[in-house]
Amino acid sequence: MKREKVSSAVIRRLPRYYRHLTDLLAAGTVRISSSALGESMHLTASQIRQDLSCFGEFGQQGYGYNVESLRREVAEILGMTNSHTAVILGVGNLGRALTENFHFDRYGFRLTAAFDVDPALIGMVTSGLTIQPLEALDDFLKENPTNVGILTVPRAAALPMAERLIAGGVKGIWNFTNSDLALGRDDVIVENVHFSDSLLTLSYLISEAT
Amino acid sequence: MKREKVSSAVIRRLPRYYRHLTDLLAAGTVRISSSALGESMHLTASQIRQDLSCFGEFGQQGYGYNVESLRREVAEILGMTNSHTAVILGVGNLGRALTENFHFDRYGFRLTAAFDVDPALIGMVTSGLTIQPLEALDDFLKENPTNVGILTVPRAAALPMAERLIAGGVKGIWNFTNSDLALGRDDVIVENVHFSDSLLTLSYLISEAT
Repeated sequence: MKREKVSSAVIRRLPRYYRHLTDLLAAGTVRISSSALGESMHLTASQIRQDLSCFGEFGQQGYGYNVESLRREVAEILGMTNSHTAVILGVGNLGRALTENFHFDRYGFRLTAAFDVDPALIGMVTSGLTIQPLEALDDFLKENPTNVGILTVPRAAALPMAERLIAGGVKGIWNFTNSDLALGRDDVIVENVHFSDSLLTLSYLISEAT
Repeated sequence: MKREKVSSAVIRRLPRYYRHLTDLLAAGTVRISSSALGESMHLTASQIRQDLSCFGEFGQQGYGYNVESLRREVAEILGMTNSHTAVILGVGNLGRALTENFHFDRYGFRLTAAFDVDPALIGMVTSGLTIQPLEALDDFLKENPTNVGILTVPRAAALPMAERLIAGGVKGIWNFTNSDLALGRDDVIVENVHFSDSLLTLSYLISEAT
């Protein structure tokens, strides 16, 4: 689907729409007005209409949005219907938190393999995946086309691991290493989860409030 | 320190400044121009000057910024010098990833206690903290003024746990529960780390790129 370039603020809000619509659906809500949706998301009704208008026509004057169908449309916009496959590198505490507690399947992802360098972990099973030695990564990617790599390795390993993933055909990296990967290429998407940035934002906001 | 209201986009960039300046300092860089700093952060020089001007006068025409002093100033702006104290609720995989691998002290936080409901965890030690039963939380907060609570509990427990923290005097919540806490008050700051929002953003960007 080709469309106008959408601002990154709108892109960042899309998953929130999906999350709120999922909660509404679970609560049995069939339809919702843009002002009610806005209230629950702390946005104005016109902001909501404007965000969604980037992607087409949703909702009906006087009726609002059908929760289930809007949720389905947002899922499609988000690419959740594209059957992403992902491997995870690093099965320490954080890696295990993701493999064991995060519901990849709910978001259109299938986690297909887990790798680590720690001999004590190799052969162990986490969420149905046998942890493989890192040496097996390149062959795995050759045999199993994979579009996302998850980096839960120590910071120093971030860049070399990213490069191996990309050499193996990965198109997106979900990066938990607290390092900005300077890949020098723009055909690979890097999405960072920087815990420290988040905590420092909290620190700033608390300090301002008091 | 009172200042004009700073946009949330600028606030979100501040921790990145701190991170980049820390890396520059570690690499032995003494001073840097706004254009060089901008290049490493993927911002324009004028964006950098504009961001920092929200907080005062930094750098010198023709010299640029002294890395160490700018980093110290940014730390102060971020409230890192305010000796935050934090407790963590939930010491599962994710809670352990934070207690064992995240360097709270580097960001001006002291993690003072860890709580869980799982009898198998209580009494265990994680990063020097003995895991306490949740029943001990209220007394702990009464005796130990704490300004931040970290929620790494299951989603269903998020709201009641947040309310207990707030009743105990906590002013900020670092929320990993993937639930938007509807607290109905604005004197408590909630900073969310929504893994699913991040993964869905990646899903969107990959899908757009291909």
